[in-house]
Amino acid sequence: MEEALKKHYEWRGKFEIRSRVSVDTIEDLSVAYTPGVAMPCLEIAEKPQKSFELTRRWNTVAIVTDGTAVLGLGDIGPLASMPVMEGKAILFKEFGDVDAVPLCLATKDVDEIVNTIALLEGSFGGVNLEDISAPRCFEVERKLKERLSIPVFHDDQHGTAIVALAGIKNVLRLTKRTAKENKVVVNGAGAAGVAIINLLIKAGFEDIIACDIDGAIYKGKSGLGPEHQKLAEYTNPRQVGGTLADAMVGADIFVGVSAPHCVTAAMVQSMNERPTVLAMANPIPEIMPDVAKGAGAYIVGTGRSDFPNQINNVSAFPGIFRGALDARAKEITDEMKLAAAEAISAYVTDDQLTPEYIIPSALDKKVATAVADAVYKIAKA
Amino acid sequence: MEEALKKHYEWRGKFEIRSRVSVDTIEDLSVAYTPGVAMPCLEIAEKPQKSFELTRRWNTVAIVTDGTAVLGLGDIGPLASMPVMEGKAILFKEFGDVDAVPLCLATKDVDEIVNTIALLEGSFGGVNLEDISAPRCFEVERKLKERLSIPVFHDDQHGTAIVALAGIKNVLRLTKRTAKENKVVVNGAGAAGVAIINLLIKAGFEDIIACDIDGAIYKGKSGLGPEHQKLAEYTNPRQVGGTLADAMVGADIFVGVSAPHCVTAAMVQSMNERPTVLAMANPIPEIMPDVAKGAGAYIVGTGRSDFPNQINNVSAFPGIFRGALDARAKEITDEMKLAAAEAISAYVTDDQLTPEYIIPSALDKKVATAVADAVYKIAKA
Repeated sequence: MEEALKKHYEWRGKFEIRSRVSVDTIEDLSVAYTPGVAMPCLEIAEKPQKSFELTRRWNTVAIVTDGTAVLGLGDIGPLASMPVMEGKAILFKEFGDVDAVPLCLATKDVDEIVNTIALLEGSFGGVNLEDISAPRCFEVERKLKERLSIPVFHDDQHGTAIVALAGIKNVLRLTKRTAKENKVVVNGAGAAGVAIINLLIKAGFEDIIACDIDGAIYKGKSGLGPEHQKLAEYTNPRQVGGTLADAMVGADIFVGVSAPHCVTAAMVQSMNERPTVLAMANPIPEIMPDVAKGAGAYIVGTGRSDFPNQINNVSAFPGIFRGALDARAKEITDEMKLAAAEAISAYVTDDQLTPEYIIPSALDKKVATAVADAVYKIAKA
Repeated sequence: MEEALKKHYEWRGKFEIRSRVSVDTIEDLSVAYTPGVAMPCLEIAEKPQKSFELTRRWNTVAIVTDGTAVLGLGDIGPLASMPVMEGKAILFKEFGDVDAVPLCLATKDVDEIVNTIALLEGSFGGVNLEDISAPRCFEVERKLKERLSIPVFHDDQHGTAIVALAGIKNVLRLTKRTAKENKVVVNGAGAAGVAIINLLIKAGFEDIIACDIDGAIYKGKSGLGPEHQKLAEYTNPRQVGGTLADAMVGADIFVGVSAPHCVTAAMVQSMNERPTVLAMANPIPEIMPDVAKGAGAYIVGTGRSDFPNQINNVSAFPGIFRGALDARAKEITDEMKLAAAEAISAYVTDDQLTPEYIIPSALDKKVATAVADAVYKIAKA
């Protein structure tokens, strides 16, 4: 880890701007700058949609954060979030050939965040929200979607949900159980947890219990915030109460986007036969893979690269934006998210699929192409 | 000009983002992204100034416009301004190795522009304001300077002023007249004109008459706006009234940042001996160089590359920001502007200096280095 700090000092920034055009001669300058540049300006003034053809807008995404929910570090502020945003920017480029500009905002006010991004809309073809804490992130995304006519995507919610669903689809392939037959427990009911639940429901799952630090969330439970009250309306059909341990009894799939070491071997033992444990808390999972395996887990995934089945957003966001930008989609719909999950899932062939390989390698840049194709097709349909 | 439009369609954007770091292996990812990236994040959270070392902030400038005064095209709106902003971005990179991000804002409200930029401050090491119309541009710049602790520079004002002063300094070398001895007329009292006048005064000029479409501006003239009332306080010491033609009688130097063909041969003939005409309206100057020469002008400059003595901002802004960023200056002071003008002027050696060569070629990328060195020295002094 000290190595990472040293490297960041050496790099002095992980991205840079490059010119795609030479400006070495008078002719170069007169075409790329004055006086020639007046022509594309006038063309866009007349037909605003031409900004997607005559400028880089068609391929440029703003990565926007307020620094309130950065990695597992929490509210470390806008400045301190930027190494993550730059990391995201280079993944966008290297995996999706998307030009992403990291932007941090010095405000936590929802309307100020929304207004700032809305004012910048003309510079970008899409907006990737990042590391904004719940429940503000839901409101920021909702308001932006209403206001903008370019795709808005909160990666911590939907990127995570898409890759989790992709893994879970392959769990179904291995266990031969249908979505409907699976009992799912999602621990952590913040940005990622809520998005995972919502996408699982769209994918046909019916028995999902959301848990947070106070245990299972059910209808009428006292002390629920508005987001969790809403969640309770359409989850937990058996109205299970009690602790996480209570919720996990008989469950087929555990999905953790919560805290280190909050799942015990006994909890895994209490699950249904051949259970799946996706312990995605980072860097320390809800339960270590060897412990989960020892307690009878059939399939184990984490957020980490040093264990099998890494659930990593990089499988999703570069391809999603690549597809959406190429289709000039105005939003990223649930259908596009489901198609992305299916593309990631299907990327693992029957021959390759094992309990230790339910998700393609995060390093495989061809996954983004498969995702982009799937998203593009839905957007154009 | 049609060629320029065709090229812009081919290019589909003049800039792009590049990664400075490889993300091909698990090790790469774990250093540039999670979990390693947590280290620089925590370092910045503890010491905010480290954002200038651990992210690209130290080298990144926002090019911000509201699209209200684009080239000679006027208020064509934010979207249509972007080809110019992208052109600027690639000049920043190619001439100054500065990473500049083009941003257009969908508002003309001064406070909204200021607030948006202020919220983004943590993402950037400097702000280059561009093509914002007067008099709002003065207020935007003033308010931003108060609020930000990174350099803010309105290129249409100060870039133009610096290069004009550089040329005029070399006029003095050729004519052997001192700043004090010169009578100067500046036609066009908007963003560029006011900045030129202010910088000329800092450089020792005393007899300057500002003119606009209503003729010479003098103290007590009726109908002056607040900016021009202020200007009248410290310009036009002889209180010359009347038209531009009246103001030009006996003048040594004419500087035009105004409109095509507003200066006649007769006006040039009415100037002092060996007069200088800098007719910088673009693309059509206030008077064509051959007409000015024919009327007795000793030195003629324009904004165009196809005539001698092109007064082009590209001689200034890349080097100014290069120097300011390297020195981590908090603002761009008048002293830095004067030093930049001196560096550009001095770049033309005595051997090279002729009435046809008072300013280095806009294509000479070494000019930016000379400017950067000069600005850096002042910033560090």
